[in-house]
Amino acid sequence: MDEFELIRRYFSLAHATRSDVTLGIGDDAAVLDLAPGRELVVTVDSLVAGVHFPSDLESQAVGHRALAVNLSDLAAMGAEPAWALLALTLPAADDTWLAGFSRGFFSLAERHGVALVGGNLAHGPLNITVTLQGTLPKGEAITRRGAKTGDLVYVTGHPGDAAAGLQLLQAGNADSGNPCVQRFAYPEPRVAAGAALRGLASAAIDISDGLVADLGHVLAMSGVGARIEVERLPLSRRLLELHGLLQARELALGGGDDYELCFTVPAARVAELETLARTFDCLVTAIGRIESHPGLRLLDGQGREVKLAGHGYRHF
Amino acid sequence: MDEFELIRRYFSLAHATRSDVTLGIGDDAAVLDLAPGRELVVTVDSLVAGVHFPSDLESQAVGHRALAVNLSDLAAMGAEPAWALLALTLPAADDTWLAGFSRGFFSLAERHGVALVGGNLAHGPLNITVTLQGTLPKGEAITRRGAKTGDLVYVTGHPGDAAAGLQLLQAGNADSGNPCVQRFAYPEPRVAAGAALRGLASAAIDISDGLVADLGHVLAMSGVGARIEVERLPLSRRLLELHGLLQARELALGGGDDYELCFTVPAARVAELETLARTFDCLVTAIGRIESHPGLRLLDGQGREVKLAGHGYRHF
Repeated sequence: MDEFELIRRYFSLAHATRSDVTLGIGDDAAVLDLAPGRELVVTVDSLVAGVHFPSDLESQAVGHRALAVNLSDLAAMGAEPAWALLALTLPAADDTWLAGFSRGFFSLAERHGVALVGGNLAHGPLNITVTLQGTLPKGEAITRRGAKTGDLVYVTGHPGDAAAGLQLLQAGNADSGNPCVQRFAYPEPRVAAGAALRGLASAAIDISDGLVADLGHVLAMSGVGARIEVERLPLSRRLLELHGLLQARELALGGGDDYELCFTVPAARVAELETLARTFDCLVTAIGRIESHPGLRLLDGQGREVKLAGHGYRHF
Repeated sequence: MDEFELIRRYFSLAHATRSDVTLGIGDDAAVLDLAPGRELVVTVDSLVAGVHFPSDLESQAVGHRALAVNLSDLAAMGAEPAWALLALTLPAADDTWLAGFSRGFFSLAERHGVALVGGNLAHGPLNITVTLQGTLPKGEAITRRGAKTGDLVYVTGHPGDAAAGLQLLQAGNADSGNPCVQRFAYPEPRVAAGAALRGLASAAIDISDGLVADLGHVLAMSGVGARIEVERLPLSRRLLELHGLLQARELALGGGDDYELCFTVPAARVAELETLARTFDCLVTAIGRIESHPGLRLLDGQGREVKLAGHGYRHF
C-alpha cells in the first residue's frame, strides 16, 4: 500500500468541515481564511512511542492524545481551535493500528470543530507530530506573563490522576476502564473553559509536565512567586484510594500528563470567576495565591512548608 | 542539559524577527497577526534519518533541508513564507550536531524572512518535522488543479542533479563540494519564482518525488494529460558528465529531492512568462505541453514514446 492509499483510507474520513478552509488536503499546502479582527494561534507537539506513551498503548488513545495535547495548548491561550496538520512517521502500514489511531484522532477533532487540512506520512520509527492552529479576537490571548501579586491560583479537574494511570499502565496490570488510566489515555483538553477565561484570567498554562513545573513557568515569566496550599488540591477519590494522601499529593503536584489548566485570576474578580466556572464541564479549584516573593512555596494547613520529591518531567 | 537549556542555546539565535509575531517562542502557543486581505498558507514535512537523508549527512544540511522542503511547498503555492515551527526529536543532546543543524536552519530562515515562532523538543529516534506558514493575497494561490489543454509545462533549475548527489553520498565517495551533492544537501527552494508566478501560472507543484510523479499529481487533479519532450529537459553538464545522456534523463524524470518547481502557463502568456523568467535567479525551461488525453507521455526528438524505468519515490 503506498502513502496515497493510506491517506485515502485512514485520513479522508468524514470529519469536521469548515467554511474557512479554502483548500484542504491534496495540494502542496493548505489555504486558510482568517476572519477579520482575529489573530492566529499556533502550536506543535510530538508524541514518541516509549517516551510520551507506552509503546503498547491502544492506537485510538494515541490518536486522541496526539490532538489533545495540542488542543490543551490552545485552551491555555484562550483560543478556539480550527485547523490541524498531522505528520505521522510509521514503522509499517499496520491497518489495525491506523484504523484505531484515525478513530481516536477524528473523534476528538470532530468534537472540537477541528478540520485536518494537511499532513505528512513517512516511514520510520513511530513519531506523531500535530500542528494545531486556532484563532481568537485580536489582543485577547491569555499568556503566561500576566500573573500579579494577590491573584488567586486555580486548577481545573483532578491533577495527578493521569500520572497514576500511567503508573498502572507501566506496571502492566492496568484495567483499561480504570478512570485514572482513562485520564492518561484520553485526556480531556479544557478548550471551552480556556476560551471562557479570556478577559478574566490574568495568566494560564496547561499542565503537561506537572503542576509545580508548569506553574513555575508562569511565575518565572510573570516575575512573581506563589504559595500553594496543598490541602486545597482537588485530589480525586480514585487517586486517594490508589495512593493515599501523601503520594496522591506528590502525583498531583509533580506528575505530568494531566492536560488540565492552571490559571490566575485577580482577587477582585473571584466572584465573577466562580459564577462562570459553574458553567464549565470540569471542576475549578482555588489552590493558592500569587505573591511578590519569587519561587513557589507549598504549604500545609498549618502554614508549614512541604517538600516535594520530584519536579516535573525533563526530556534530556 | 535539559530541553530549556537546549532551546536557549541553539534555538534562540538571532534570526529574522517579524512585526507580525505578536507572541513568539516561550508560551503555550504563538500568536500571529495576518495582514488584511491575505490568506494563510500552511504545510508540514518530516525528515527521518536514513529515509529522507543519509544518517551521516552533515547536520547543517539537515537543518537547511528541513526548512527548504517546506519553503518549496509554499513556493509551489505562490505564497510568501512567514512563520515556522520546529518539532525536533533527538536521540541525544549532541552539541556539535545541534550547532550545525541550527546554523543550517536559521541561515536559510533568515534569507527568506522566516521567524521561528514555536516548536517541540523530544527524546527519541531522530525526526525533524517543520511546519511552515506563509501568506498570499486572498484568492491568488496557485494550485495543482488549474492546468488546461494547450498550456506549456515548465520546470525550474536542473532536475536530476539532487538524485545524482544522493547516489554519490550513498556510494560513500562523495566530495561534499561536488555540485550535485550540494544540490541534494542544500536545495534552493524557488520562493521568489513561485511568488512571481501568481496570476500567470495556471498550476504548480514542487518536485520532491520526481518530475514524472509530481507532474502526474497536477495532471490527475487538473483532469488532463501531458507530453514531455525529453530532449528539452535542462540536464546540467555535471549530470551528463556523471551519468551520460540516458541515465541523466532517468534521473531528471524519476529522481526525487530536486525541490524545483514544475508549472504550467497558458500558451497565450508564454511571452510574458519568458520576460518574467529573466528576472529569476534560476533557469526556467519549457519541457512540454498539456494535452486533453489523460496520462503523461515522454517523447523523443522524433516524437517516439520513451519508457522510464522508475516512477518516483514510494514511502511504503
